[in-house]
Amino acid sequence: MRRIYLDHAATTPCSAEAWDAMRSVALEEFGNPNSLHREGRVARERLEAARSDIASDLGCFRDEVAFTATGTESNNLALRGLVLGSASMGRHLITTTIEHAATTNTCRQLEKEGYDVTYLPVDSQGFVVPDHMSAAIRPDTALVSFAHANNEVGTVQHVQELTHAIRKKNPRTRIHIDGVQTVGHVPSQVFELDVDLLSFTAHKFYGPKGIAGLFIRRGVKLTSQLQGGGQERGLRSGTQAVQLAVGMAVALRSSIASIPVETKKWASLRDDLMSQILGTIGDTRLTGHPCQRLPGTASFAFLGISGEDLTLRLDRLGYATSTGAACSTGSVDPSPALLAMGLSRSWATGSLRVSFGRACEGASIPDIVQAIASIVSELRSTHQYGSHAA
Amino acid sequence: MRRIYLDHAATTPCSAEAWDAMRSVALEEFGNPNSLHREGRVARERLEAARSDIASDLGCFRDEVAFTATGTESNNLALRGLVLGSASMGRHLITTTIEHAATTNTCRQLEKEGYDVTYLPVDSQGFVVPDHMSAAIRPDTALVSFAHANNEVGTVQHVQELTHAIRKKNPRTRIHIDGVQTVGHVPSQVFELDVDLLSFTAHKFYGPKGIAGLFIRRGVKLTSQLQGGGQERGLRSGTQAVQLAVGMAVALRSSIASIPVETKKWASLRDDLMSQILGTIGDTRLTGHPCQRLPGTASFAFLGISGEDLTLRLDRLGYATSTGAACSTGSVDPSPALLAMGLSRSWATGSLRVSFGRACEGASIPDIVQAIASIVSELRSTHQYGSHAA
Repeated sequence: MRRIYLDHAATTPCSAEAWDAMRSVALEEFGNPNSLHREGRVARERLEAARSDIASDLGCFRDEVAFTATGTESNNLALRGLVLGSASMGRHLITTTIEHAATTNTCRQLEKEGYDVTYLPVDSQGFVVPDHMSAAIRPDTALVSFAHANNEVGTVQHVQELTHAIRKKNPRTRIHIDGVQTVGHVPSQVFELDVDLLSFTAHKFYGPKGIAGLFIRRGVKLTSQLQGGGQERGLRSGTQAVQLAVGMAVALRSSIASIPVETKKWASLRDDLMSQILGTIGDTRLTGHPCQRLPGTASFAFLGISGEDLTLRLDRLGYATSTGAACSTGSVDPSPALLAMGLSRSWATGSLRVSFGRACEGASIPDIVQAIASIVSELRSTHQYGSHAA
Repeated sequence: MRRIYLDHAATTPCSAEAWDAMRSVALEEFGNPNSLHREGRVARERLEAARSDIASDLGCFRDEVAFTATGTESNNLALRGLVLGSASMGRHLITTTIEHAATTNTCRQLEKEGYDVTYLPVDSQGFVVPDHMSAAIRPDTALVSFAHANNEVGTVQHVQELTHAIRKKNPRTRIHIDGVQTVGHVPSQVFELDVDLLSFTAHKFYGPKGIAGLFIRRGVKLTSQLQGGGQERGLRSGTQAVQLAVGMAVALRSSIASIPVETKKWASLRDDLMSQILGTIGDTRLTGHPCQRLPGTASFAFLGISGEDLTLRLDRLGYATSTGAACSTGSVDPSPALLAMGLSRSWATGSLRVSFGRACEGASIPDIVQAIASIVSELRSTHQYGSHAA
């Protein structure tokens, strides 16, 4: 059966261009970048060239980019590293109620260790309200951390309004943005965003799995979360995966170059899908904002059904979609992020995320709409929809 | 100029076989292994098949293998994860004075957090003495951690004698082996070694950089060092690098299958080099044990010279070698491990490690010996060797 991949927010295929750039580094220029000999120096040059390219694409200095293995590791390093490395700044953190588990669970762990965390509410479209942010900032707020775009509904925050509010209230407070969903898809120049820390991961923008990065503004002190040989200027010990850094740099440059064309392409499919779904299926809501959202991501809530059942049945018809987050598989509870946006359990349980990208070739919006409509209708009839809706 | 790579202990080239096995996983079967749809399930199958293969090669169960990004991360997870996850077992750890920085620096950090660490001395060949181990074990010893083979001199510990001594004295004490230098090169069946935790990393056995693993015996509780989506059965959050796991499994199987042939091949070159160097160059010592050592690794100390100068000049002649560890580059102090083996500073400063492997094609032992002899002689004449030797 023909497969249509509509889950680019979970992961993307590695581009042939990125993959092929890695082979000679892995097989021939394979030295340990920490070795002093020629093979080591060549590997180090490849690593640093990749770092330079990424820095240039993010609008920062080369020494402001550290390589990690996953977006989760980048978020852990940003949050734990910052608060442990800046003890004098205070023991208060601010995040939101709709963050990825890598942020939320790191905050919960920090609470157990005696830190004070404020979980800022969001509005019904998933936006953090600048006035709420401003009110939450305290003299001892060491760090504010939130995602540039929410991974489940795709709402893209007004980052500059938020950073402005934070800087105005406490200029010493550091700002971390989880850019895992945005880097490579939405312009992410760190000086424009005015952030101190930015996480990103290659496999979300057609790079290889197993490599990610963290922008760390000069002057921001982090405590390393791994003890060892002191690689990455002491921030992240462990032999660097040179070929993966090269692959990430190639993928990032290509993704950024494609933003103008791809934004239009995916946003057009996304908008068609959103308007047709809302126009065709009753008791359906768009989740997140109608247009201030990731170009490729549409997200919905269908009253009275299970989103997991819906995605499983779509899968059988050839469509790969998601209820929202690939990372909390097996959970039967509705998404905390959707509840935080004010959806009731009956709505939040019926969530669907459809994310377009380069692997969705052949996607026909009318076909997708028809598939979703018929499954929703069937599920509603099976599951005594009336009683849910009551 | 022709290059002869003699630093396989620092890193190895990825084999074409391992690399080519990864491409289709990265480009076509690219799903997120935590997704519920078919693309996710296929990726999960690839990931779990790789895990099964590795488990079978190590003689353990599939659910006893966790994927990480680096040997350093595996060691950090083993040490921190174990002591934080087994609070009731006690706050005492034992390691040795010759460990890799990933172990030593994790222990130092744990000391700062209130743990008590014993750094066991070794004998002049780098062996941990079972009686010393036995004497150091206490009722509150939660963990013993040491490397299966030392990375600088290649001495392979008599692991079973040590594990026997530990189990006899305190059966509750957990045992971690850093197998980064041995897995894929020396038989490493965990039930034979009788260990609870074993670290390994792909790039030391012709696999890709960026993937490593940790064997965790069933029943051993570790605390995760990364907060997030709970991947790897809660032990290591973050999207798994499926293609790298596949590459590691292919490389490990192939390396293990090659052990009989390659051991002979490299040990023959190693032994020729050792006997010729010792027979040709005066005031030279073998470091480590004459034969209970890694098959591919020869290591020496030359009185009165700088090992760094020696490796840099060998590099100019086309030979990639090392003073010992690639991971503490820039350090001008002699290796703490060599000092711990009883070498004086004058000897320990002049260390050289030559490690054979698949990328040393064309290596002529007489040529290498001649190159080393002439450089050592030249360095000694430049550096007032007489005053050092006095």
